Formats: sequence, C-alpha cells, structure tokens
Amino acid sequence: MTQSRLDKLTASLLTSNLDAVILNPGPTLKYLTGLNFHLMERPVVLFVAPGKDPVLVLPELELPKVDLFPYKVQGITYGENPLEWDDAFRKAVQALGVDGKRIGVEPRQLRLLEFRHVKSGAPEADFPDASDVLADLRLRKDKAEVDAMRVAVKIAQDALEATIPQIKIGMTEREVASELVMQLLKHGSESEMPFAPIVSAGPNSANPHASPTDRKLQAGDLLVVDWGAAYDGYISDLTRTFAVGEVDAECQNIHKIVQEANAAGRAAGKPGAPCANVDKAARDVIEKAGYGKYFTHRTGHGIGMEGHEAPYMRGDNMQILEPGMAYTVEPGIYLTNRNGVRIEDNMVVTENGAESLSDMPREIRVVG
Amino acid sequence: MTQSRLDKLTASLLTSNLDAVILNPGPTLKYLTGLNFHLMERPVVLFVAPGKDPVLVLPELELPKVDLFPYKVQGITYGENPLEWDDAFRKAVQALGVDGKRIGVEPRQLRLLEFRHVKSGAPEADFPDASDVLADLRLRKDKAEVDAMRVAVKIAQDALEATIPQIKIGMTEREVASELVMQLLKHGSESEMPFAPIVSAGPNSANPHASPTDRKLQAGDLLVVDWGAAYDGYISDLTRTFAVGEVDAECQNIHKIVQEANAAGRAAGKPGAPCANVDKAARDVIEKAGYGKYFTHRTGHGIGMEGHEAPYMRGDNMQILEPGMAYTVEPGIYLTNRNGVRIEDNMVVTENGAESLSDMPREIRVVG
Repeated sequence: MTQSRLDKLTASLLTSNLDAVILNPGPTLKYLTGLNFHLMERPVVLFVAPGKDPVLVLPELELPKVDLFPYKVQGITYGENPLEWDDAFRKAVQALGVDGKRIGVEPRQLRLLEFRHVKSGAPEADFPDASDVLADLRLRKDKAEVDAMRVAVKIAQDALEATIPQIKIGMTEREVASELVMQLLKHGSESEMPFAPIVSAGPNSANPHASPTDRKLQAGDLLVVDWGAAYDGYISDLTRTFAVGEVDAECQNIHKIVQEANAAGRAAGKPGAPCANVDKAARDVIEKAGYGKYFTHRTGHGIGMEGHEAPYMRGDNMQILEPGMAYTVEPGIYLTNRNGVRIEDNMVVTENGAESLSDMPREIRVVG
Repeated sequence: MTQSRLDKLTASLLTSNLDAVILNPGPTLKYLTGLNFHLMERPVVLFVAPGKDPVLVLPELELPKVDLFPYKVQGITYGENPLEWDDAFRKAVQALGVDGKRIGVEPRQLRLLEFRHVKSGAPEADFPDASDVLADLRLRKDKAEVDAMRVAVKIAQDALEATIPQIKIGMTEREVASELVMQLLKHGSESEMPFAPIVSAGPNSANPHASPTDRKLQAGDLLVVDWGAAYDGYISDLTRTFAVGEVDAECQNIHKIVQEANAAGRAAGKPGAPCANVDKAARDVIEKAGYGKYFTHRTGHGIGMEGHEAPYMRGDNMQILEPGMAYTVEPGIYLTNRNGVRIEDNMVVTENGAESLSDMPREIRVVG
C-alpha cells in the first residue's frame, strides 16, 4: 500500500515540476511509510526524488527504523553533536543530486530546524511550497481509510456517552476532560490522542479554542465538549454542546440556531459542489437569525490523519468536493464572556451526497 | 511572574544584540505568557522587541486571548483567507519597526509557515538562531517549577505502580500503554500528555524510540516502559525495564549494567561539573562492561516544560551545571532484534549535588 503511495507521490512530483520533496515527522511521512517518527530536537528528514531510492537522514539511534520501511531507503545517520548534522544532510543532497533543483516543502510541518540543515546542504536549491501536492495525496480517502475514521467516530461517541452520566455540577472542566480521555482509551482510542479535548463551560464556552480550566460547572452553563479519538492512524473530531442544569432562553435559542446551521451544512456537501457551499449553507442560517458576526470561524476543515487538513470549508474556497473527501461541519455562535455553542460532525463525500460518520444526538441535552 | 519573565527576555535580547524575537505556540510562548496556544494550520506569532509592547498576530477567532495576557499586548488579527495573512504580519513588523533588524528565531519550534509570513513582512531582516537565549530563560528552575516537576514525577510513579499488577503475559504493548495512560489521568496528570508512553517488549525493547505495537508480551521478554506525566505545565520523563516472567542471563546482566550506569550518572551531577561528566560517568560503566557500542544515545536531556530541552548530557557538552538545572539520566543498552534496557530518572541540581526526583525501585522486577 505504501509502495503505491510512494509511486503516486513521485508521479505527482514529475507533473508538478518538482525535483524532490522533503518530509519531517508528521502525517505525510506516516502516510508514505506506515511508520511513526517523533518530532524532536534531532532532525529526521525523508528526501523523495523520482527515479531514485528515497534517502532518510536520521539519528544513529534510530537507524533500525530503516529496515522497517516498506521499500528500499538509504539511511544516512548522524551522531549526538549538532555540529555534525549538516554533514549528513549534505550527503543526502549529494546522493540525490538535488542542489540547485526544486525541492518541495510542507511549511505547516517543516521546522526551521530541518529546513536550515537541508538548505546548508543544498544552498542553490529552491524550496517551493508543495503543500497542495502533498495534501492531494491524502485528499480522497479509500474504503480502508473511511472504515478507520468510522471506528474513530464510534470510539469517540461511545466514550462521551460513558462520560455524560458522570458529569456533575461542581466538577471542573479539567476533571470532565480527564474522565473523557480515560473513556476514550477504555473504548479503544490509540494512546496518542489526536488532540486534547476542549471542555469549556459558562463564559469559557464562548472561546472556540479554550483549554480546560479549574472552573467548576455551574447550573445555567452551556458546556462545549470538542473531542476525538484515534484509530489505526485516523482520527475523529466532534463537538456537542450541553446544558448544565437549566439554561436561559438565549442559550436555548443559540443552540437551536447552531443545530439548524449544522444540519444545513451537512446537507450541502455532494460531489461537484464547491467547499464554499457547505460554509454558505451553515452560515446563512446563523446570519438570518441575526448572529452572523458571532460565528467567527470557517464552517469546517478536512479530516483524516490530522484534525486540520484539506479541504477547508471556507466561503472563498471554490475547491470542488469529490467522493472520498472527508471534512468537519462545525458551525458555532460565540457570545464573548457569556456563552458559546458549537456542534460538529465528521462527513465523507459519497457518490451522490455526503454521509455523516457521526450520529450522536445533536439536540441540547441536560447534564449535571 | 510572567511580567518578570518578559522583562528578563527583553534584557537578554539587549545583551545578545537582538532587536526582537518571534515565538510560535510552544513551551517558550507558554513560559512567557502563561497561556496555551495551539500549533495549527493558522500561524500564531508573538513578536517581542525591547521598549515596546509585544505584538501578537493571531486568527480573528482567537482575539479574546489577548485580554488574558498578563501584560499589555497589541493583537493584530487576520481572517480565514490565507492570502490575507501576510498583511497582518507586515503590520506587526511595522508596528515594531524591525524590518532590516535582527529578529531571533527558535528553529526547533518555528515552522516554515510562520517564518515565511514573517519574512514576507520583514524581507530585509536577519533571523539569527536565538535558541540559546530562549533556552537560558528556562534553564534554572525556581522552587515552584521544581515543585511542579516533583508532582509530575509522583503522578507518573504512582500510575505505573497501579499499572504493574495488571500487566499479564499475552497483553499487547498497546494495551499496557492504554492502561498506563488511564492510570496517569486517574492519578492527576493533565490530559495533554507530555508524550505517548513507550511500551516495548522483546525485540522491540531494543529500539530506543519504539511505538507500542500489537505484539503480545511473552515470558522471557524484557519490557521497557518510558513514560511521564504533566502537572501545571511541567513534566516528568522516566523509564524502568521489567522482566516478563523469567528472563535469561544476558537480560539479567545488561539490566544490572544499566542500573549501575544509571547510579553513576545520577551521582555525577553537581554545581560546577560540566554536563559531559554525567554522560561520561554513565558511559564508562557500560563501556567497561563491554557494551559501549550498544549505548547509542546521549545519557540525558534537560527537562521542565518539555521532554527535550537544555542542558544536554552529551560527552562533548562542556556546559556547566548550576543549581536549578533539571535533566534526565537515562543510559541504555540495545541489542538489536534481541533485547533492550533503559533506566531513566529526573534530576535537579542542588547546592552541592543533584537530587533524583524519582525514586521508584530500579532493580529488575518481574511482571506477568
């Protein structure tokens, strides 16, 4: 499987006028190798150039990993002294003959650490952004990938259902998050979580990217839980919003609006439709209800091996949806310092529409 | 506290001949702000320049975070369209007047994503490596930091002690890792783990950076567990090696050697000693026993907010230990495709020596 992925990448490089691409530890490297590498203070870089065996620069202590590759790879190692690292990168560049050539990079993943070492070995090279080429590799999920995402969704849903009865007024956001993570593991999530769950209540719920705090749940809070599981390298990323005890009419109202926006966004995805349609469908509902300026982010992002990958559900994104593309629909309303709501599902484009992999009830539910 | 940290940074910039420094989400940003930022596909960058309020470039939806800063910060936001992001970075550079100046960077943390946006706004600037200046900020831990690390060690030790009775022959490495993570959470670790535990048995134990697999524990395996907890932003990072049932004489022997090397490394730390001494003390034991070439990594790394930070216990590192510096001592022997052993403790330099924060038994213990 990874051999065919490598072949697909080298074909893409040829059509994209790229002489090579460099990858550091992250989802793309995992997709192409099936192996886990750690992002650490020692640089690890895979060089892929059409027509030659890939070259992996790595610390000496990681050399056994070269034997685990599903295809032939030349390993070039370095020792503990950072002053010697440039030398290993120069050897890699020479082995592939790519100085002065076009070496594609992934700016969202590649750090200056790796980049500067590669550049020292290839001072005359250009480093164009290859994000789109690399994102395209992973854009259309095959059946095995969708099946893994389906399991990741089921684990997440089962874990939250097991957590809900334990949520009580007076618990802190952190305590709820810890219980949820335990349930995720108990239900079969990989121990490397896709992201730390967001558990935010009351005024904190109005911050879309809150981290769990020691604030205690109070009656009248809205409670946003944004969580996911990992299974076989693929993840889920869901959000539900709960009422802690009885909440006021405004909370009820914004929840109802967001629920309708979520339904509209889910219904808008199909092959041939631009991503913008999904955003517009959800946003229209919120704007018509008069809360447009409180929906401060795009409607969704792609999902697969990462929480945030292509395609992006933005109003200006005319990328066309195709079967196998997977993304979130996650409209929200955030009333700063008061209350927030978000409802998020994971979608896969089918032959004639889009399927939600997640089906946990979206209605406001009372906890505590 | 964070105000004084910012003051210390601006003083360091002046003495280091740096006109500014840029920070993306990561430990240094957290140290300076006390706030959590996510590393995501949208760039977030804090610009710090002496004599001016810091400037934070961030997505519009994260703007509420500016109010949480412990000091005055100018927030410059951008919307969802990446084509508009350069504009926000240009405004930040102009606000501080740092184009053509020396803007320090942290190559281990900064991605090409952030770097290229900053560079587009400051095309004439130099971007020297400011890693040492930034690492120095966090190098000597104060009492509150050591206390947090002490709790992180206790949580980790208690969690593994609770896991040990549940480890049985026939369990997979993954299952042991999941149980351990659950126990870490139950014992109070933050839900964002410092790293996914390494649980590697039999031949996998000979790979220092193994990820847990579906391989089942077998009698005769060595079992390496490398794990840690997070508490109040500080982490622990420990390793112990177990015998699954009865192990052969070679396993017993390499465990004994590594245990002695660990003790020697722990004893070698004190104020005034170079880091190299710690490495040499541990390595000498292993070399004298004839296993020198199977100890393929340095003896340790600094620890605090990150698993891998300064100071590094390498044979060529003449950096002098000072009170408050914290680091791991983790010698190992790796017999490829056979067996591996590592024993790791977390040390803090005191006024007249070095204290091990971890005290879990280091002798080989039988599990299963």
